[in-house]
Amino acid sequence: MRAARYYGIEDIRVEEIEEPVCKEGQIKIRPAFVGICGTDLHEYLGGPTFAPKVPHPVTGETIPVTFGHEFSGTVLEVGKGVNGFRKGQHVSIQPTIYCGSCGACALDLKNVCYKGGFVGLSGFGGGLSDACVVPADYVLPLPQNIPLDVAALIEPLAVGWHAVTQSPLKKDSNILILGGGPIGIAVIQALRARGCGQILVSELSASRQKFAKQFGADVILDPRKDDIVQKAHDLTDGLGVDIVFDCAGVAVGLEAACKAIKIRGTVVNVAIWEKAVPFQPNDLVFREGKYVACLGYVKQDFRDVIDAIATGNMSPGDMITSKISLENVVDDGIKELLKNKERHVKVLVEI
Amino acid sequence: MRAARYYGIEDIRVEEIEEPVCKEGQIKIRPAFVGICGTDLHEYLGGPTFAPKVPHPVTGETIPVTFGHEFSGTVLEVGKGVNGFRKGQHVSIQPTIYCGSCGACALDLKNVCYKGGFVGLSGFGGGLSDACVVPADYVLPLPQNIPLDVAALIEPLAVGWHAVTQSPLKKDSNILILGGGPIGIAVIQALRARGCGQILVSELSASRQKFAKQFGADVILDPRKDDIVQKAHDLTDGLGVDIVFDCAGVAVGLEAACKAIKIRGTVVNVAIWEKAVPFQPNDLVFREGKYVACLGYVKQDFRDVIDAIATGNMSPGDMITSKISLENVVDDGIKELLKNKERHVKVLVEI
Repeated sequence: MRAARYYGIEDIRVEEIEEPVCKEGQIKIRPAFVGICGTDLHEYLGGPTFAPKVPHPVTGETIPVTFGHEFSGTVLEVGKGVNGFRKGQHVSIQPTIYCGSCGACALDLKNVCYKGGFVGLSGFGGGLSDACVVPADYVLPLPQNIPLDVAALIEPLAVGWHAVTQSPLKKDSNILILGGGPIGIAVIQALRARGCGQILVSELSASRQKFAKQFGADVILDPRKDDIVQKAHDLTDGLGVDIVFDCAGVAVGLEAACKAIKIRGTVVNVAIWEKAVPFQPNDLVFREGKYVACLGYVKQDFRDVIDAIATGNMSPGDMITSKISLENVVDDGIKELLKNKERHVKVLVEI
Repeated sequence: MRAARYYGIEDIRVEEIEEPVCKEGQIKIRPAFVGICGTDLHEYLGGPTFAPKVPHPVTGETIPVTFGHEFSGTVLEVGKGVNGFRKGQHVSIQPTIYCGSCGACALDLKNVCYKGGFVGLSGFGGGLSDACVVPADYVLPLPQNIPLDVAALIEPLAVGWHAVTQSPLKKDSNILILGGGPIGIAVIQALRARGCGQILVSELSASRQKFAKQFGADVILDPRKDDIVQKAHDLTDGLGVDIVFDCAGVAVGLEAACKAIKIRGTVVNVAIWEKAVPFQPNDLVFREGKYVACLGYVKQDFRDVIDAIATGNMSPGDMITSKISLENVVDDGIKELLKNKERHVKVLVEI
């Protein structure tokens, strides 16, 4: 079968590999649509970070590994002992790999498993292939009214949903989002689905500003021209915003976030950071602010996003800005995103 | 009357000034005992920081200002329109100066008032004098069984109590405290009064280690010898502590705090920081940790501390390591603490 496999920096090969066998407790899936993620780009440019150089503690695999962790698909085979699934069924894959025995797994917080990883990055196959076998626990059935292309958006939307769940959101909370990329867009949609006050988005790129507006931002700020902290206060009767979602992960944003919140406001960090940055805790002290870090999603976030799309509470279809073929995943996907990332929210690979 | 007034760096003068007049809504107090605080030392060495160079927005005063914000006293005179107080009554003074009209005051969080200050630092007199007049709202009656010297400890104890109130403390929470100075000691006592699991304290100084143990620490760690993060995990079945209280405010402590907490653990910052420090948000991300900043106290913290001492739930008397006279406040107080701070928890000035 075909698979796009990651070998190292700037080395992803679409090649023929042996089809995986579906064992007890597993489900074999024919991937349908696969989103390309910022993490994929990071691995391509500077990895391997998540892709294992030494055997992954859960999957036991090392590079080359099949890529693609944001995907939908159709059930090809149901392993022995698995109930509730049938061949031909449409499904979403929650790609969190977990050990099941650490302190995080004991709390059912598999997203922060001590030995965690991702299907499509750390082994267990990946979406960018003709077939993928995963533990049945990783698979969620899709309602009939969610098309398979839209279903490939559930994973990034779950990141935004999870971040909003970790925040102290109220129906009238005023929000500032730093960064209007795919995760910023996911946060906007989760907020609009759940209800909030004003949404301010700080974003440099003109095309991303347009996307942010399209998905529900009220006010677009340009950090090159606008004083973000001042605007956050001016637009909230001088109080500051209730919550900042940092989807950018840059030093200047951290300082602005801490200063833009109101008394006892919260900064939710949704970003992964490349390095340590200067931080003055007094910026939080003098307003008794909180800084809340979150990572990925848990299964309930997937269920909630599926439900929000199925009920029409969330309509993320327009996030799909391009559909490409598996053969052209490097040129039309990875390289296109590296060259023209502002033009896209999500590039999907159609398998 | 006598007053110890701050003029600037290394310039505190005990001098004769005019006695203040008690107006409507105010109470005139004869200070009894006054604690010397780290903030006083900072102002002496490097200020004025809190002491106003330009007219303070609430008090309208500039330096010289009378010092002393941790104090107990006896009511000398009750201003017109003030109920519930009588001459001769023993009282504690909550020294938070507030404007009453900003966003923080609207939430009754006067500790983070936009224009805030402190009696004994920003004007309205101070404890280091023969008489001090403050708004009646700043005065709390003391139960008869709290001696006036112990009552001078209520202010620093309220800082620790407030920090614990802002934390997600449970009866079995394991705790790490960074820094065993007066505020670290206050946090230990608040924790012991309210109930918690193990208390680990990281402190360099041998004499402060002894104080920490005396007031209820279970394990003393020495950051020069011990790997604090490793110990925090070793002593909690590999999980990490539930809460870190950072009473030290140094860069290496921030990193250790973020890495010492368990999954979804909390770092509570009780320190004021001199400058920005390196911070890697990923240290919180991979455990979905929280960083909670707090400042000072609110009136309820004072009430709670008074209640805890009155009921015997807290016995802070041994914090008093020296009593000195007002005339010798600089030599026996400020300079003694700068030379030998490890020997002391609290130096009290007896007025």
